[in-house]
Amino acid sequence: MRNGGSRLTDEPKTRVSVRIYGQDYTIVGTESPAHIRLVAAFVDDKMHEFSERNPVLDVPKLAVLTAVNIANEYLKLKEEYDRLAAKLRREKGGEDDD
Amino acid sequence: MRNGGSRLTDEPKTRVSVRIYGQDYTIVGTESPAHIRLVAAFVDDKMHEFSERNPVLDVPKLAVLTAVNIANEYLKLKEEYDRLAAKLRREKGGEDDD
Repeated sequence: MRNGGSRLTDEPKTRVSVRIYGQDYTIVGTESPAHIRLVAAFVDDKMHEFSERNPVLDVPKLAVLTAVNIANEYLKLKEEYDRLAAKLRREKGGEDDD
Repeated sequence: MRNGGSRLTDEPKTRVSVRIYGQDYTIVGTESPAHIRLVAAFVDDKMHEFSERNPVLDVPKLAVLTAVNIANEYLKLKEEYDRLAAKLRREKGGEDDD
């Protein structure tokens, strides 16, 4: 998912207009329009949630700190995912040496 | 993880100064300083990567689109995680009805 630009891929592109924190963006990606709208709504919600807790922040800082917050959730989930995947592999390995 | 503000928790707080895309931020969270720095570096990398691909973007838009990109990865990973967790539950269930 990106904002314009080009990429070496044959996957069909979707171009979706979304509004995040009062600003319009055109998001280009290979994901479905529904997924892109979901992602945009997720970021919009987070930015509003964050601005309520930190009303003095300007928009660039708010956006960066929202990105930090989402990245934090992402990296924690990634650890948890890797742990779960390793567990699944171990259990499979114990069954049939796969 | 947040930028200042208060929260009803007894967990010890960490306060870490980080630099993201040339701007200093104080991040307050219950995570370790090492984890907070890792998250900040992740966002900093993403912003630089994004600005190389979209050199005309101003900082607020760049930050929002970086947040969108990370949120996209987060939500896709979340789906994958939920699928894996369900699979693990099914396999466990098949073994010992847990």
